[in-house]
Amino acid sequence: MAESLIAPGSVWLVGAGPGDPDLLTRKAERLVQSASIVFHDALVGSGVLDLIPPGVRRVAVGKRAGRHLCSQAAINRRLVDAALAGERVVRLKGGDPSIFGRSAEELAALAEHRIPVRVCPGITAASAAAAGAGLSLTRRGAARQLVFVTGHACAGEDFDLDWASLASARSTLAFYMGKSSAGRIACELIAAGLDEHLPVLIVENASLAGERRLWTRLGLMGLAAASLASEGPMILLIGEAMNGPDPADRRASASLRRESSLTAGC
Amino acid sequence: MAESLIAPGSVWLVGAGPGDPDLLTRKAERLVQSASIVFHDALVGSGVLDLIPPGVRRVAVGKRAGRHLCSQAAINRRLVDAALAGERVVRLKGGDPSIFGRSAEELAALAEHRIPVRVCPGITAASAAAAGAGLSLTRRGAARQLVFVTGHACAGEDFDLDWASLASARSTLAFYMGKSSAGRIACELIAAGLDEHLPVLIVENASLAGERRLWTRLGLMGLAAASLASEGPMILLIGEAMNGPDPADRRASASLRRESSLTAGC
Repeated sequence: MAESLIAPGSVWLVGAGPGDPDLLTRKAERLVQSASIVFHDALVGSGVLDLIPPGVRRVAVGKRAGRHLCSQAAINRRLVDAALAGERVVRLKGGDPSIFGRSAEELAALAEHRIPVRVCPGITAASAAAAGAGLSLTRRGAARQLVFVTGHACAGEDFDLDWASLASARSTLAFYMGKSSAGRIACELIAAGLDEHLPVLIVENASLAGERRLWTRLGLMGLAAASLASEGPMILLIGEAMNGPDPADRRASASLRRESSLTAGC
Repeated sequence: MAESLIAPGSVWLVGAGPGDPDLLTRKAERLVQSASIVFHDALVGSGVLDLIPPGVRRVAVGKRAGRHLCSQAAINRRLVDAALAGERVVRLKGGDPSIFGRSAEELAALAEHRIPVRVCPGITAASAAAAGAGLSLTRRGAARQLVFVTGHACAGEDFDLDWASLASARSTLAFYMGKSSAGRIACELIAAGLDEHLPVLIVENASLAGERRLWTRLGLMGLAAASLASEGPMILLIGEAMNGPDPADRRASASLRRESSLTAGC
């Protein structure tokens, strides 16, 4: 049965989720098992790669901040070539392919060559980070919308973001890939009107054994992010909803609120 | 091994995903199998419920628009009671518990009684709808942010939304539960400055056998949503990223663009 999931010469873009292999979907697991070749991001960890059967070729093509194993054009080319050669291709992408996954480029390249391609969704990092912390991203009264933003900007580049709209009240903001820009993001949001005391949850390596959570305030977000030293992916969750239901947490928040100013380095 | 996943007297809030049982995570499947009782939403379909072993009690507690099987307070109470009775409790919620899942109320109620509770994330409807359509929600050049909003407003009530910030350029907007309000949402967004020709993808029953996709334009969104007659959940995806990579789709879009005005019923 597994063999029939992927026709020879076709491609599936498959969400690998945040890292924990148990957070792959049942469908993703079956697709990986029915592939003849799997192209995977550098961020897809060993636990997930262990789900690929021994006979299936695996090729690392992903990008990490600062270290590009492969350009996007080269990845597109390899997917096209493998499909044209009749392989049963899985392109395994960290998180959800449809959310900051560069899937549009790969879908377009495959469509140009009339290669059948389908997408299997994955758990996105914000969902995993919130679940790990036992928090809702959209708690009633605290958040009426949830905004996913990429915090990645190349060195020296300006962010191409509409800070005024991001500073809308009662949003939860989830910045992906915001580690090196956390301080700049905080300054821009405060300048656009957000309260420097707004709660922030920083999660590194969501869902993995090395997961670390740090609760802080917007004014201190840059310092807090810099204090987490690993190379793992980081997500910044900003908004009143990050004040969790735990009474101890609420007490800590109240005491932080009494500080006169938290803003550092803007 | 499965038995040890849930300690007696503890609760897991588990994301059931968009409906296709293959889109449950591997972890969610194992949690359901190790529960002694499963409380599930009305929207969790039969395919997912079939994953619950025969010996495990299942209790429908969910809400559907217009038909409340149980108030939120009553659901909270039942979860607390089951945990205090020593059950291994799974609360199975459609989609992702952290995104418009009312999980904050349940987490708070359980925390009040010092009942151990954890969360397993699920595939949210926007991810599943985009995957089914073979689209990225954040295509470069088309979308720099992705906004999840609930389109649910009780009859006669105003939306509690910041339309100006939602009308920010180059966003993809995903309205959950927007079926009955699609026309009002379109009018508000156009009044706030969005182009009435902006592409819209309406997906009903994402990931299920009855999935239907309708591409339209913002000015026609209300009419288009009304034309889908089923009772299934609907998601409205709005933004330039909904112009997919398929050339036929682009041609259709170009011809729609030539129409002078699409706005209907504002």
